[in-house]
Amino acid sequence: MFDSVRLPHRLDKEQFEEIKERLREKLLDAQFELAQRKKKTILLLINGSDGAGKGEVLNRLYEWLDDHYLETLSYGAQTDEERERPLEWRYWRDMPLYGRIGLMLGSWHHRPLLERAKGIAGRDAFHAALDEINRAEEMLFQEGVIVIKVWLFMPEEKASRRLAKIREADGGLRRATVIEWEDALNGKERERLAQAALDMVEKTSTGYAPWVVIAAEDARYRDAAVAELLLKTLDGANAESGPAAAAPSRVSAIALPRSSLISALDMTQSVDPESYSEELARLQQRISELTTGKKFEKRGLVVVFEGNDAAGKGGAIRRVRAALDPRRFRVHGVAAPTDEERARPYLWRFWRNIPRIGNVAIFDRSWYGRVLVERVEGLCSQQDWMRAYQEINDFEHQLERARLSVVKFWLAITQEEQLKRFNDREAQPTKRYKITPEDWRNREKWALYEEAANEMIDRTSARRAPWTIIEANDKKFARLKVLRTIVERLEADL
Amino acid sequence: MFDSVRLPHRLDKEQFEEIKERLREKLLDAQFELAQRKKKTILLLINGSDGAGKGEVLNRLYEWLDDHYLETLSYGAQTDEERERPLEWRYWRDMPLYGRIGLMLGSWHHRPLLERAKGIAGRDAFHAALDEINRAEEMLFQEGVIVIKVWLFMPEEKASRRLAKIREADGGLRRATVIEWEDALNGKERERLAQAALDMVEKTSTGYAPWVVIAAEDARYRDAAVAELLLKTLDGANAESGPAAAAPSRVSAIALPRSSLISALDMTQSVDPESYSEELARLQQRISELTTGKKFEKRGLVVVFEGNDAAGKGGAIRRVRAALDPRRFRVHGVAAPTDEERARPYLWRFWRNIPRIGNVAIFDRSWYGRVLVERVEGLCSQQDWMRAYQEINDFEHQLERARLSVVKFWLAITQEEQLKRFNDREAQPTKRYKITPEDWRNREKWALYEEAANEMIDRTSARRAPWTIIEANDKKFARLKVLRTIVERLEADL
Repeated sequence: MFDSVRLPHRLDKEQFEEIKERLREKLLDAQFELAQRKKKTILLLINGSDGAGKGEVLNRLYEWLDDHYLETLSYGAQTDEERERPLEWRYWRDMPLYGRIGLMLGSWHHRPLLERAKGIAGRDAFHAALDEINRAEEMLFQEGVIVIKVWLFMPEEKASRRLAKIREADGGLRRATVIEWEDALNGKERERLAQAALDMVEKTSTGYAPWVVIAAEDARYRDAAVAELLLKTLDGANAESGPAAAAPSRVSAIALPRSSLISALDMTQSVDPESYSEELARLQQRISELTTGKKFEKRGLVVVFEGNDAAGKGGAIRRVRAALDPRRFRVHGVAAPTDEERARPYLWRFWRNIPRIGNVAIFDRSWYGRVLVERVEGLCSQQDWMRAYQEINDFEHQLERARLSVVKFWLAITQEEQLKRFNDREAQPTKRYKITPEDWRNREKWALYEEAANEMIDRTSARRAPWTIIEANDKKFARLKVLRTIVERLEADL
Repeated sequence: MFDSVRLPHRLDKEQFEEIKERLREKLLDAQFELAQRKKKTILLLINGSDGAGKGEVLNRLYEWLDDHYLETLSYGAQTDEERERPLEWRYWRDMPLYGRIGLMLGSWHHRPLLERAKGIAGRDAFHAALDEINRAEEMLFQEGVIVIKVWLFMPEEKASRRLAKIREADGGLRRATVIEWEDALNGKERERLAQAALDMVEKTSTGYAPWVVIAAEDARYRDAAVAELLLKTLDGANAESGPAAAAPSRVSAIALPRSSLISALDMTQSVDPESYSEELARLQQRISELTTGKKFEKRGLVVVFEGNDAAGKGGAIRRVRAALDPRRFRVHGVAAPTDEERARPYLWRFWRNIPRIGNVAIFDRSWYGRVLVERVEGLCSQQDWMRAYQEINDFEHQLERARLSVVKFWLAITQEEQLKRFNDREAQPTKRYKITPEDWRNREKWALYEEAANEMIDRTSARRAPWTIIEANDKKFARLKVLRTIVERLEADL
């Protein structure tokens, strides 16, 4: 989940100043409108490693917003008053009025995480606590309290080093430094915390209160990203109708320059034709062995192909297919749904094609259509595609639990390469059918599709069913990487 | 939960025939409209003890409905096909089209219940399975599939006896008899099943897919009640806007005569004045001892009073108060919310008054306003009060977990007694302030309030925080029962 956050995310001073000016103005307008309308409360939960800058973000927001309608809600060790009441009481006590914004440090996620990191709570108890949190957040959402959950991400060592430096410089005063974990956890426990946090982000990213993980190494980027998220949420809350949940989707008046897994790919990778043939044969042979062996009779394989138009999905699928026993696989091309399919929940058309144990199903486009084409083309509401991330994670978990390995590919090509391929296709009579006016139209929405793909990969790369992004400008390189990924996964699972 | 189902619920032949005629006509109309609109699917899940008549209900619905738009979805042991796919696959495979009704036997609740009853699954694993079910049912709801979950209730021995009789009469053919448990569970396990079913009904009664427990001893009542529920759900699904969830609330074109806990009370109970004074003093003394003792310093007490207007809540509260240390209790009269309170989620005004450990809070009316006055007067939407049952159960669970004993009273008087008290109050200058035009207006909605109170008691009598219904036509009797209940609860908890 959220692998993209590990990429460099930076703003230089000039970029920052320019964005800051625009952000501030819009934030103040939106905040004022929220305060006038008095219909919604916004709770911005600032979480993350110590040293990632929780306190600094808070201070920055105080600079940028009007503090008349702003509250700091900060929870550390329980006070006497709090210890003598239910755990939830302190959050309720401070609930801001409709029209106001609360900035929260030490939210209700803190204690389950701490207990998990220290090994006090087992996995089941931890998950039970997360389920309770989901119910509570759904209730708040229904009651007009919009919860935005930010996790400021910084690799553990960097955060520790930064924290030590701040403490030193500060002469032990810890002014703007929020210490939630450092003093309570040892090194091993902090590692467990990182794992638990990931688990929590996955389990509590709901349609009504999703987590947003923000790269925190660059303070300018970090602050701008949090402020931009808050602005989007304010805009959503102020909209007369429509979705009111925190809207991490990247549609905003202020466009922050983004780093994404896709934009960070090295698209120049290629293979030479000779070693290609050899390696292809070897990998196909290996897939054949693995999928006809005794052990595979107790398992199955589901392969998902998504990617840009003309990225070479068909060619890659043919190379996989060639390695499989024709009696035991099926390829499912996913186009517009049939009448039959439209008349049922969207996952039905995929469930009907889930393979038996010992078999392979290849999906040429898939259930991810909901968070790609349906999102970009407005074929479903924002609420619908926002809840789909969790629904899809649940769905794939059900497949995994039934011993089906789920392997997911995003085939990425550059805009230039796509143009070249489109033109090539139109020039060749045998390939002309492959290209439609719709493909050209989709191309115009390149940025929106890339944005959707990035968010999809961030939100649905579960531990057991991760995405593999394929640099597909070189078709042969792409095919080998696809086959190799399948081999590695089968070897691990069998 | 659902204690009212243990009361006799019967229809005589004449009543049944009359209701049947009206039900059938309306059911067919509503079913036809659903089929025409093709927007929603209805899944009616028929669950319950073996012998309670699951198969008979199914057959009855086939008689009454048009079988063109009706499907039986029946799941027993897994087939070969099913065993080789994820557990969820068989339900997805059979998903009816929008516009159709599916009658389901052996729903997805069956396996978690079975594993719990047999002791294969522990409590945490069982609850994790229930949470998954909630997420899946929420998704179905969002996708236009309305799930109605019926539990046909019959005391275990009666169901067993009935089952044996049917089997005998049937020569072992088991025609209409659905055997889900009998063959898989021994006596001890069946007892555990009953407990697990209760737990499940509590944990999976959500705003979008609540359980409805139906008394099944009288076949006529049972069938009419299921059909009436289906009719209400159809009406909801066919409504252009508004809530689409299964609507167990008792507003229907066909009014089935109901048995409720409140209507079943013996309202003639009273005490003689002499023994009253003695007993009152004794109970107050005991409460005083209990709430000033060492053990109470580690606990607390929350007492909720709800009931008809003029039922004597104030008088009862005064008798409790007299027994308490004035430094350590507060009485909270709950009237219309203040501006401050209206500007926050509805539970906030109660959270702010949750007592510290070692203290007592008495609520004269409470958070149940949401499912009583707000429901009846239309001050919130049906969705809002339907989700409130679960939210309130969660809230009280949080109090209980923090070692606060939650004791809840419903003070019931008859309509005649209320009239008498209203008139008395108006005649007395010192009491005239107590009676308002609103009280007279509420009185006109007696049936609606009683219905709301009954459903409230059924859905929020959790094991740890049950309702106690007080027969309050005799004020002295009522007060003693209130005090006695508090004493018993404190003695149990301390």
